[in-house]
Amino acid sequence: MRALISVSDKTGIVEFATALKNLGWDLIATGGTLKVLRGAGLVVADIQDVTGFPEICEGRVKTLHPKVHGGLLGRRDSAEHMAQLAENSIGTIEMVCVNLYPFEATIAKEGVTMEDAVENIDIGGPSMLRSAAKNFRDVTVVCDPADYANVIEEITANGNTLPETRLKLSAKAYTHTALYDSHIATYMRKAAGLDEKLFLAFDAIQTLRYGENPHQAATFYRAPKEVSYSVAHARQLGGKELSYNNIQDANAALNIVREFTEPFCCALKHMNPCGAGVGKDLLEAWTRAYEADKVSIYGGIVAMNRPLTAEVARLMKPIFLEIVMAPAFEPEALEVLASKKNLRLLEVKMDNVKEPQKQYVGVNGGMLVQDADVECKDITADMCVTERKPTEKELAEMDFGWKIVKHVKSNAIVVVKDGATAGVGAGQMNRVGSAEIALEEAKAAGITEGLVLASDGFLPFGDTVELASKYGVTAIVQPGGSIRDEDSIKVANEKGITMLFTGMRHFKH
Amino acid sequence: MRALISVSDKTGIVEFATALKNLGWDLIATGGTLKVLRGAGLVVADIQDVTGFPEICEGRVKTLHPKVHGGLLGRRDSAEHMAQLAENSIGTIEMVCVNLYPFEATIAKEGVTMEDAVENIDIGGPSMLRSAAKNFRDVTVVCDPADYANVIEEITANGNTLPETRLKLSAKAYTHTALYDSHIATYMRKAAGLDEKLFLAFDAIQTLRYGENPHQAATFYRAPKEVSYSVAHARQLGGKELSYNNIQDANAALNIVREFTEPFCCALKHMNPCGAGVGKDLLEAWTRAYEADKVSIYGGIVAMNRPLTAEVARLMKPIFLEIVMAPAFEPEALEVLASKKNLRLLEVKMDNVKEPQKQYVGVNGGMLVQDADVECKDITADMCVTERKPTEKELAEMDFGWKIVKHVKSNAIVVVKDGATAGVGAGQMNRVGSAEIALEEAKAAGITEGLVLASDGFLPFGDTVELASKYGVTAIVQPGGSIRDEDSIKVANEKGITMLFTGMRHFKH
Repeated sequence: MRALISVSDKTGIVEFATALKNLGWDLIATGGTLKVLRGAGLVVADIQDVTGFPEICEGRVKTLHPKVHGGLLGRRDSAEHMAQLAENSIGTIEMVCVNLYPFEATIAKEGVTMEDAVENIDIGGPSMLRSAAKNFRDVTVVCDPADYANVIEEITANGNTLPETRLKLSAKAYTHTALYDSHIATYMRKAAGLDEKLFLAFDAIQTLRYGENPHQAATFYRAPKEVSYSVAHARQLGGKELSYNNIQDANAALNIVREFTEPFCCALKHMNPCGAGVGKDLLEAWTRAYEADKVSIYGGIVAMNRPLTAEVARLMKPIFLEIVMAPAFEPEALEVLASKKNLRLLEVKMDNVKEPQKQYVGVNGGMLVQDADVECKDITADMCVTERKPTEKELAEMDFGWKIVKHVKSNAIVVVKDGATAGVGAGQMNRVGSAEIALEEAKAAGITEGLVLASDGFLPFGDTVELASKYGVTAIVQPGGSIRDEDSIKVANEKGITMLFTGMRHFKH
Repeated sequence: MRALISVSDKTGIVEFATALKNLGWDLIATGGTLKVLRGAGLVVADIQDVTGFPEICEGRVKTLHPKVHGGLLGRRDSAEHMAQLAENSIGTIEMVCVNLYPFEATIAKEGVTMEDAVENIDIGGPSMLRSAAKNFRDVTVVCDPADYANVIEEITANGNTLPETRLKLSAKAYTHTALYDSHIATYMRKAAGLDEKLFLAFDAIQTLRYGENPHQAATFYRAPKEVSYSVAHARQLGGKELSYNNIQDANAALNIVREFTEPFCCALKHMNPCGAGVGKDLLEAWTRAYEADKVSIYGGIVAMNRPLTAEVARLMKPIFLEIVMAPAFEPEALEVLASKKNLRLLEVKMDNVKEPQKQYVGVNGGMLVQDADVECKDITADMCVTERKPTEKELAEMDFGWKIVKHVKSNAIVVVKDGATAGVGAGQMNRVGSAEIALEEAKAAGITEGLVLASDGFLPFGDTVELASKYGVTAIVQPGGSIRDEDSIKVANEKGITMLFTGMRHFKH
């Protein structure tokens, strides 16, 4: 049995090669790998001695030879193939261990030139992987150091890897080459000025019971690179499987949480926040979020940006919730919630608040890709356009409302009082309609003064300001930019309202 | 100058090879290609004579040889490379013309076995493409017959292809191999029982001015395979560039149009239909859709499933619209609308109504994929759950309403009269709220009898039926399935309303 080894990532390669050697395998290696293995005292053949052909063109042509590929591709069950190999003095090769230097890493280096990039395109490596993977019935192909242990174990136990393992490893190898070439293609297309090609690769993590409706099949996929605030990369600590609608809702909740660095908690249902609060600690944030709307939270999702404590878990326990998400769960909090068998608990990585992300929206036969709406203006007094300037408290309340209203479906209006939402108006055809819903909610809760109002788009006329004043609003934050901004400013000045223009709108449909 | 030719798709290959020959190039070919070219009377070298190595393992190992890859990879500007080639009697190869038999086509064949699939995995082809593409400074790589003409033209004019062309062709080659391996990887992963890997590849068709908001960069991509009812594959005949929100709205409108085979027209704004109508011809359908809501259509999108006639175009002309979509535009209709410089006219392929499609919804670090909601139950009298059975007219109206309500944001209620929407209630937190909006709209339009109501989800209590009756509804279509269905049926029977249960809900968020 012969193994051909040529790895860019040398993690565990000496141990792996040593184990193979101890199992009686002969080893062949190329360039750097040969040096490392011989340096570790292993007897290893040089690829040049196998092919009988010198390494030419600075290593560009080392393994592209029938002595290698015949040895990999010849079918052991074909007398004809085996006779041809023998006639041409080609020995069979039973294993290829090759991994490729990530092309993304090459082109991510500072000052990288086209010449560097091209020099780093591996030709021999993918060819060996693909030949070995094609002949998986006879050949083991290893492209991931994570597979070394199992391969050695199987050979130790059975004399060779198991057929089902070889099939799996073959599939992994083609995945490796597909991704490798997709990165090269993306780079080259850009350099060539060809319309950019978008390659996306995801791993299936869950076949969902169904999609948005029971007759729609659905699957949940994860991107290979972990990001923060991601349901796809979350760790589920308890409860039922997530449903399609759960995932969409949970994602929306995490996007809200991401806006805050201070202790924050929000409740969400049907893609819209129904209660949100900040505080000096999680307990205060939770209490504010919960008291903002004790009814709508029923059957909803709760997300927070501090580890869930046992104290807060006890307060949550009596409420019917679908999902609780936190960056961590205190062991005692998990105990408290353990009896709620259906409640999904998700531990979600929450850092890197401003990490840029792409948002993908599929349309028939196409895809819209946009920068996720992670930008958010800091709310400052110099945004003020009215005679009365905001107090420190109003500024803080406006900052809070502005971060929430971004994530409410347009046309969105949020009213805030004491670090909590007092009313949320979502998805109405006109802005004053959303304002009415939000303000009525605050009024129904008995909050009729010292309110702050945030609007995701500009107020087109003075009417919303007029209405807000009647409900006890003293401060308004909105993008500004209407041709009739003066109307809104005039009404605000008449009513003693302070108003800020952020200059950035946040529509969300 | 030597060209190595080995093509699966033989379109235009004889003409291309003949042209190269006439330009003084030497040709090398493999297997089937060799036969075709020699059959056409061309003098072509057999690859075996170039490598000096026999074709072994039933053609699995033909071109994987230093005489080929050295000839492709050697840098012409390196004296060392060229000396090594000479020492080893390797001649340079200046062109590779290779295309791969689509792996998707192999596995789509009826009764295909794993053995067939594996035998069809090309090893030599991708290796040649990748070597030639790497050395694009010196080598031309052609993997698409569409490029033959330009390549010949450039060689005729300049003695060789232009450097920028070679770079473009290199990018195309890596795209070809990336996609090829992604199809293999998907197939093998499935066979190996590995979690399915989702590979998506799209072509950028438009850098959008911005995304949902001005601070969000956005790009519009098209899937390689054309589908019906697709904005991405539409042909724009006039007007400004599409915006991000245009594309989402247009996609929503096309999904509605797709439900209908009879002449149909709908107007849409902010992702929800504001008026829709069927008729014996487009004129009637348009008239009904327009008269359903003459106000909301302002600034909206209109889509229809019949060629736009001059007659209907004249009726549209006075209205401010963002987009008009049709399967075709009569020349005179185009003339009528020509003066509206901003109006986007999209010719959209509209057939294959039930073509299954996947819907992609991105979440942070992941992707939800579900079957698009293309299923729709035929509305039949045997779905009736009430004492009074529907009339033919009621059945037709319910069928119409049911197809529309599918595409309204949940909770959705649509009321219908005479083949047109009379009211649309969208996106309310509770169903009776949406019903109120739809019914009030009908009442405001003076329609107070003979109405039909459609609901995308079940009616949880009898209250909506009660309310509908007051507004003149005589027939209701809904999924059914509430534990309190009996309440709704009881009220319907009391009011003489006929009610159908479809057994299929259509939530849309």
